[in-house]
Amino acid sequence: MLTYSMEDRGGLPLYEYLYRRIRADILDGTLAAGERLPSKRSLAEHLNVSVITVEGAYAQLEAEGYLYTLPKRGFFVSRVARLPAGVGAAPPLPPPPEPVHWRLDLKSNRVDTARFPVATWARLTRQVLSEGSGALLSPVPHQGLPALRQAIADDLRDYKGMAVSPEQIVVGAGAEYLYLLLAQLLGQNTVFAVEDPGYPKIRQVYGKCGARCCPVPLDGRGMDPAALRSSGATAAHLSPSHHYPTGLVTPIGRRQELLAWARDTGAVIIEDDYDSEFRFTGRPIPTLQSIDSDGLVIYMNTFSQTISPSMRVGFMVLPPRLLERYRRELDFYACTVPALDQHVLARFLDRGCYEQHLSRMRKEYRLRRDRVLEAFRASPFADRISISEQGAGLHFLLRLDTACPDEGLRRRAREAGVRLSFLSEYAAVPDPAYAHTLVINYAGLEAGQLPEAMDLLAEVFKE
Amino acid sequence: MLTYSMEDRGGLPLYEYLYRRIRADILDGTLAAGERLPSKRSLAEHLNVSVITVEGAYAQLEAEGYLYTLPKRGFFVSRVARLPAGVGAAPPLPPPPEPVHWRLDLKSNRVDTARFPVATWARLTRQVLSEGSGALLSPVPHQGLPALRQAIADDLRDYKGMAVSPEQIVVGAGAEYLYLLLAQLLGQNTVFAVEDPGYPKIRQVYGKCGARCCPVPLDGRGMDPAALRSSGATAAHLSPSHHYPTGLVTPIGRRQELLAWARDTGAVIIEDDYDSEFRFTGRPIPTLQSIDSDGLVIYMNTFSQTISPSMRVGFMVLPPRLLERYRRELDFYACTVPALDQHVLARFLDRGCYEQHLSRMRKEYRLRRDRVLEAFRASPFADRISISEQGAGLHFLLRLDTACPDEGLRRRAREAGVRLSFLSEYAAVPDPAYAHTLVINYAGLEAGQLPEAMDLLAEVFKE
Repeated sequence: MLTYSMEDRGGLPLYEYLYRRIRADILDGTLAAGERLPSKRSLAEHLNVSVITVEGAYAQLEAEGYLYTLPKRGFFVSRVARLPAGVGAAPPLPPPPEPVHWRLDLKSNRVDTARFPVATWARLTRQVLSEGSGALLSPVPHQGLPALRQAIADDLRDYKGMAVSPEQIVVGAGAEYLYLLLAQLLGQNTVFAVEDPGYPKIRQVYGKCGARCCPVPLDGRGMDPAALRSSGATAAHLSPSHHYPTGLVTPIGRRQELLAWARDTGAVIIEDDYDSEFRFTGRPIPTLQSIDSDGLVIYMNTFSQTISPSMRVGFMVLPPRLLERYRRELDFYACTVPALDQHVLARFLDRGCYEQHLSRMRKEYRLRRDRVLEAFRASPFADRISISEQGAGLHFLLRLDTACPDEGLRRRAREAGVRLSFLSEYAAVPDPAYAHTLVINYAGLEAGQLPEAMDLLAEVFKE
Repeated sequence: MLTYSMEDRGGLPLYEYLYRRIRADILDGTLAAGERLPSKRSLAEHLNVSVITVEGAYAQLEAEGYLYTLPKRGFFVSRVARLPAGVGAAPPLPPPPEPVHWRLDLKSNRVDTARFPVATWARLTRQVLSEGSGALLSPVPHQGLPALRQAIADDLRDYKGMAVSPEQIVVGAGAEYLYLLLAQLLGQNTVFAVEDPGYPKIRQVYGKCGARCCPVPLDGRGMDPAALRSSGATAAHLSPSHHYPTGLVTPIGRRQELLAWARDTGAVIIEDDYDSEFRFTGRPIPTLQSIDSDGLVIYMNTFSQTISPSMRVGFMVLPPRLLERYRRELDFYACTVPALDQHVLARFLDRGCYEQHLSRMRKEYRLRRDRVLEAFRASPFADRISISEQGAGLHFLLRLDTACPDEGLRRRAREAGVRLSFLSEYAAVPDPAYAHTLVINYAGLEAGQLPEAMDLLAEVFKE
């Protein structure tokens, strides 16, 4: 008869302890396959527990397949492989990536979140939550909350002059997720023209989706239409309003040529409007989407850069033909942004808090940029640098007059605790013209850090 | 000289109005390519505005490419295609899908969210927000917030007996997003064995990722290992704890056979533990992951079913080898869940609110299930139905004795305003054995609705 000292069970319920002991005996072979177990009543008497306890343990063992029953004959041990030793311990893991603490980080695209109106956001969140459970728990349509899509359409109309219906908008958890959806919407055979140099994540995501990417070079006005034509691309992923990392703005004539390419070849243009909000002079450049009358352009943007990267909300605007395809083929995907966040963001837009925040940040970033440029101009290496494209965005290019190759500069910087980013890193096809050019992301650079930053850079740039 | 009546500008700033008028003249050909514009000073005098106004308008037109400058000669009109008429109006759209109002919906997997402790969630949210902007704005590691991953690991240890390190956990915006990541992690050449019948979204997502899916039939114990071996699959997506829609629980012996298949063929098992929390008898079945000592199993689960589908948080647990690959190849993806939601969920788990909610919901759903079963047993069609697999989950199967084919039943139901779901819809390979079997999702069925529901079904089932 099975004998277990039920006093050793620690905090476990009796039935659970008995279940575990019998299971262990089956797994280590003490109880052999086909062996018959004592009846519930006799085991209960033997162990001095209630029949209900034994019943609970047997039922669980049967549900999990350790025991089987034969009518009127009782419980028998199933054929179960022995467990190898050591199960139950967490597996040995590869060491987690070491966090690096930089004295100066000019590579990370750090948005200054300290000035975000957290109190307003918190107030709107409390407000939404106080109105009942609906905002938190009601199902959200697959394309996103109607109130948020309406608020986005209104914002696009008021601040970018775009005529967009909320029905055309698809909300998703950040730009990368939208790239994934786009790759699936346009299909496996799509050949994506991507800007070279350009934002590497775009190539990475499309590549991981199994699509082919062909890097197309930029001239001084944006993507080169001749190169685009000969690339065989069926879609072009562009950032005409503000290209990263060169800062290039595509002029109207080139925009029209790009639209003509799409019209002539039946291709699609993805207009990635990332980073276009932080323009320091004049009004924002009209989007490609707003001068496209043939439904060739998918417009996309995100709130990661303007609110915070940890706030994962982006959206895309589909032209009618692709909206139809989206609804037919991809409408099974549930919206990836939690309902509560969508409600709060909709109000943040509706009440004007978003544009207020943007205009405050534009001032702040302009001030910051001016201070950073001033510090560079007053630096000991001022006569060896030239700075370009500082009219928009949270970065600029800095060309250094040096004989040292980029790799050498990067190594020397790393030793000094400085994280640098080079234009050459953004190139799919290497080009000597990109050498010695740094991409300076200054959004995270506070005034107080500048003297130390210039000292560190002087050390790194020393010939 | 360009002449515009500056009084007609409405609420626009002077420079903006001037910019728009000149742009319109360029786009409609009034100003021809190559034409030279008046100097800033002379146009300012002519229009009786300040030089700064003209400067602002010219600068914007130049930035956008409508004008170009020649040194010492002034501003010239660029070559720009004429805009077609009608730009600026929202495009005609396909009609939005009609929302259907069902009198009785037994297909939607509606979680009863009315009992979710919204007040607790709101309190935790306020608490997190009151602690400063960090929770809302600080960057989140790509695998998810450490506090949330720790809370999930603790929950898995305490309630499922799983030994998991927080380092192995990847948090993502719901199960479908995790399927996308898995398809990319395992690679384009993966052949996924999926359960047949089974949850269609799994096949859909993998298919959209370009992977091949092969449906593998189930016998009474889960996926058939012989069929699995001959399928050539390199990964198997399984729900051994509670299969949807059959409710099948895979016993321990079969689990070991499936692990042996993975070990022998170098394949991977994805253990989708969806819906396993609402088990009504005994403790939860041990997971495949917890009896796998070879790192063959990826465990995944979501909070959509237990909290709310509009709360998009899921997670997966990667074995060491795949964790390493994930970090090497996919670590560029930012975490798709907003930081605030992760902080709040971590506390909701840590403070025991989650398990408390689950145990309350288990009681509620058991009560609801008993009432629903009672209503079916007392119905006029009671002698023509048999119900099975009601031990776990929020649905059961109902086999109807009828000569009417499923399509006929569905049509008749639709006419009566009743939405039915059939086992045959979940099959990739049709099988007459699945006929006349309804999948009854009862989680959304309140006691008060039952009499009307039975009347409606009696009408639909009438021979």
